[in-house]
Amino acid sequence: MKISPLQKARYEYTPKLPGMLRNGIADICVKEGAATQSVADQEKIAELFPNTYGKPEITFEKGKNTSADKKQIVGVILSGGQAPGGHNVVSGLYDALKATNKDNVLLGFKGGPSGLLEDDYIEMTDEYIDQFRNTGGFDIIGSGRTKLETPEQFAVAAEVCKKHGITAIVIIGGDDSNTNACTLAEYMAANKTGVQVIGCPKTIDGDLKNEDIECSFGFDTATKTYSELIGNIERDANSAKKYWHFIKVMGRSASHVALECALETQPNICLIGEEVADKKMSLSEIADYIADSVEKRAANGDNFGVAIIPEGIVEFVPEFSVLISEINELLAGSKTEEFNALPSWEEKYEFIKAGLTKESMAVFEILPQGIQQQLFLERDPHGNVQVSLIESEKLFSALVADKLAERKAAGTYKGKFGVQHHFFGYEGRCAFPSNFDADYCYSLGYNAFMLIQYGFNGYLSKVSNLSKPAEEWVAGGMPITKMMNMERRNGKDKPVIKKALTELDGAPFKYFAAHRDEWAVKTSFLFPGAIQYYGPSSVCDITTKTLALEKGEEI
Amino acid sequence: MKISPLQKARYEYTPKLPGMLRNGIADICVKEGAATQSVADQEKIAELFPNTYGKPEITFEKGKNTSADKKQIVGVILSGGQAPGGHNVVSGLYDALKATNKDNVLLGFKGGPSGLLEDDYIEMTDEYIDQFRNTGGFDIIGSGRTKLETPEQFAVAAEVCKKHGITAIVIIGGDDSNTNACTLAEYMAANKTGVQVIGCPKTIDGDLKNEDIECSFGFDTATKTYSELIGNIERDANSAKKYWHFIKVMGRSASHVALECALETQPNICLIGEEVADKKMSLSEIADYIADSVEKRAANGDNFGVAIIPEGIVEFVPEFSVLISEINELLAGSKTEEFNALPSWEEKYEFIKAGLTKESMAVFEILPQGIQQQLFLERDPHGNVQVSLIESEKLFSALVADKLAERKAAGTYKGKFGVQHHFFGYEGRCAFPSNFDADYCYSLGYNAFMLIQYGFNGYLSKVSNLSKPAEEWVAGGMPITKMMNMERRNGKDKPVIKKALTELDGAPFKYFAAHRDEWAVKTSFLFPGAIQYYGPSSVCDITTKTLALEKGEEI
Repeated sequence: MKISPLQKARYEYTPKLPGMLRNGIADICVKEGAATQSVADQEKIAELFPNTYGKPEITFEKGKNTSADKKQIVGVILSGGQAPGGHNVVSGLYDALKATNKDNVLLGFKGGPSGLLEDDYIEMTDEYIDQFRNTGGFDIIGSGRTKLETPEQFAVAAEVCKKHGITAIVIIGGDDSNTNACTLAEYMAANKTGVQVIGCPKTIDGDLKNEDIECSFGFDTATKTYSELIGNIERDANSAKKYWHFIKVMGRSASHVALECALETQPNICLIGEEVADKKMSLSEIADYIADSVEKRAANGDNFGVAIIPEGIVEFVPEFSVLISEINELLAGSKTEEFNALPSWEEKYEFIKAGLTKESMAVFEILPQGIQQQLFLERDPHGNVQVSLIESEKLFSALVADKLAERKAAGTYKGKFGVQHHFFGYEGRCAFPSNFDADYCYSLGYNAFMLIQYGFNGYLSKVSNLSKPAEEWVAGGMPITKMMNMERRNGKDKPVIKKALTELDGAPFKYFAAHRDEWAVKTSFLFPGAIQYYGPSSVCDITTKTLALEKGEEI
Repeated sequence: MKISPLQKARYEYTPKLPGMLRNGIADICVKEGAATQSVADQEKIAELFPNTYGKPEITFEKGKNTSADKKQIVGVILSGGQAPGGHNVVSGLYDALKATNKDNVLLGFKGGPSGLLEDDYIEMTDEYIDQFRNTGGFDIIGSGRTKLETPEQFAVAAEVCKKHGITAIVIIGGDDSNTNACTLAEYMAANKTGVQVIGCPKTIDGDLKNEDIECSFGFDTATKTYSELIGNIERDANSAKKYWHFIKVMGRSASHVALECALETQPNICLIGEEVADKKMSLSEIADYIADSVEKRAANGDNFGVAIIPEGIVEFVPEFSVLISEINELLAGSKTEEFNALPSWEEKYEFIKAGLTKESMAVFEILPQGIQQQLFLERDPHGNVQVSLIESEKLFSALVADKLAERKAAGTYKGKFGVQHHFFGYEGRCAFPSNFDADYCYSLGYNAFMLIQYGFNGYLSKVSNLSKPAEEWVAGGMPITKMMNMERRNGKDKPVIKKALTELDGAPFKYFAAHRDEWAVKTSFLFPGAIQYYGPSSVCDITTKTLALEKGEEI
């Protein structure tokens, strides 16, 4: 099989482990911390997780390995969307497992959690694993979106584990998958299956983090890839001086990706969903905010710029959410047929006008026709509007164009407004992991095995102190129950890991907020360039500005 | 001013010169080759360029510098679209100029050729140049698309040169800009202004190349940037196994960019405009060709893939070009108003049906409605269809979906066809130049000054043997007239540099053609990863596969 020169070179890379894991398996001992409790709803969580609640945080240290001499057969699962570094979690896990006992076995369940339910797996070998070291993608075993959450599924999982003599399952996933890992861990303990469950924090969205987990893996590489592209476009904009580029970046439920890209590239505009929701901003207010920057820059002769739009932005706009609910209501049941039967868009428009409240109709009216039609014509199998299909970068550039037309008529704006649109998402999920992600992921996997070997169950593999060189990283584990609270999901209270939204009083947002007025007017673009895997450490070993700021460091 | 860690590191990079230019200015002598003649239409070109035709090719060698001791005041211009490495042409030019005589002056005319006409310039200093070394973009002096081609413009240019005592002008541009450079050179000689004109071959499109110019600068970096993204998307497709990605890449008049990206990433499908034209393929045939790959892969359980679509593809489809001409004809003059006055799309459609030939109407009918409407509703100031606005990636995915629906009905296809669309263009034009482009461009600029110093006029700066290490590169110059032929442009015969289309009997296309049937069915993706500026030479110093194949090398 042909491989690229970079892939060949990356096979040679040796991921850096935390200092305390570098002394060899025989020299890793456990230090137990205090008992933990959940971040909220302690009583309820304790009641739901009698076997896995309240366990201590643990860290690994240099010292005599006191774990039991037991043959381990471990299953590993990749769950959900791709994130750079997944292959390194698997290879770190494999290396620790084989270094501990060469008879240990690692089974990779294929295509996500469904692989475990369907008993579809491959046994990992040196030869197989070596093809995937330090590469992007989840193609080593594939991934999938099946949710492992019902007792029936757990029973099947336990059965499959029993069949293979599996002693532990490692689930690599986001907040939902780790919530499910915790529930599975509780099930395995309650039913005395002897199977341990360990989670690993994955997601490019960056919304799985908290006081224990400094960041999820993949966020570093994905944001570096998007920032490369945004920086290149900024430089093009500043050279051609001809276009405003509206760039949408992945991230539906939180705006961490957009914020990190903004810190890396200093664009003129970056919208943050959490702020839009907090300030209850309307579409019109957002468009005015952007148009202000366009107008001020035009006054300086700069008819170009860059605006970053998080993928999920419209879902944070309160009036838009109301509009969507009204549309879903308006088309419920047989009314869809009635609506579809109307022969022309004009007649459909009248139907809509008659059915929406005055407030929502006002919002609907300012939308470009293409988006108006999309809201009504492209609906999911349940008849609901597919908000994720809305091209928010085009929506906002159209709204801004309307604002500028008004301002031109009023004589306050005299510039030109040419627009290009971009969406960056798939480009970053499977990049070769940065050195940071390669090291972090390998360490998470290695560490996950140490948690297994020491008998822990319902823990998340935890590596921290990440803004420092890997030598100083701290390896250990955290009971997943510690990160849980009760939330309303589909009409029921459920124990879940709290999703981390962008904090408006957090250091990353505050840094952005302190500089954005200047960036909006002055060209302050930064050009990060392509991810480097070699070269000066300042170029190839630094992680995100988000993490640096959260750690109180200068950027 | 804040700069990124990579930008800081790249300032320290020392571009590699061809071996023969490494001995210092005092040790560069000229070796004249035989007299040249134009590639075609020799008599006509000789007649049009009496002062610059038939000059010898020259190469630089190690030997005593015999150039006249004359103070040089040089003007430099960036013309047309951005290409990575432009800043290095300027810095190479500056370094050779200052190393020859510290009193020499380099003036950068701002915003493209119009800067020369408007006498808008900055004088280059060490401090200013140092901010731009080895960086992307054209922001050092900006660029523009004004064409320098009329005698009136030439007279103004000569006047500005006289005012500043300018001894030479360096024009960095594509085929058109270098054609104009040649005409300007002839003008300057005919009018005994004493001003020399030197060109440099720039364009990411790769369509300025011939037996003398092995490649234009920027092509290497731009295709590496696009290939990084395509490879990442391939890996995502192969991990998620969920989508076909239709990826449009820049390149309107030739498909070199698409072909190089295909050689780098081995996608399932890559369309080549020149082949489509040569085989007179219809839209339906192209759609069937892609649908065949989708169907065969689906039969293997692979409902995912990657197709590369060159930006200008529809202009190569004969029946589509006919349709466009008919539409332009149909809406000529007052008929546009008549058409616009029709109240509904249905009535407009009848108007179209009545006006097109049966053959063109058949083509029109298979287009998705969005594109049908775009053809009629979005026209340029002359009333013509804006072919460049056509989203060809969406056009072909829609046509393929139609084909697959037919095949599903016929029972031959049982797969799923989910699509994602991408367009990569602006992302690559201003990337930090690869080591190859940084070296090549610096050498082109350095070399351009040596041509000036030795008194040449109407020459293109030429650096060749580029698939070998820089040490072995050959530096010299080529009379631009040698690359010219007569072509019909806007109803007149004009002397122009022949645009290089993808040659269907050239080694790069032949390699692609020999492998594409396998790639269409089997997943043979290659993942080049991000451009590396450091690390193993096999990773950071290799240029394009197109060039390697053209040079008869293995890839």
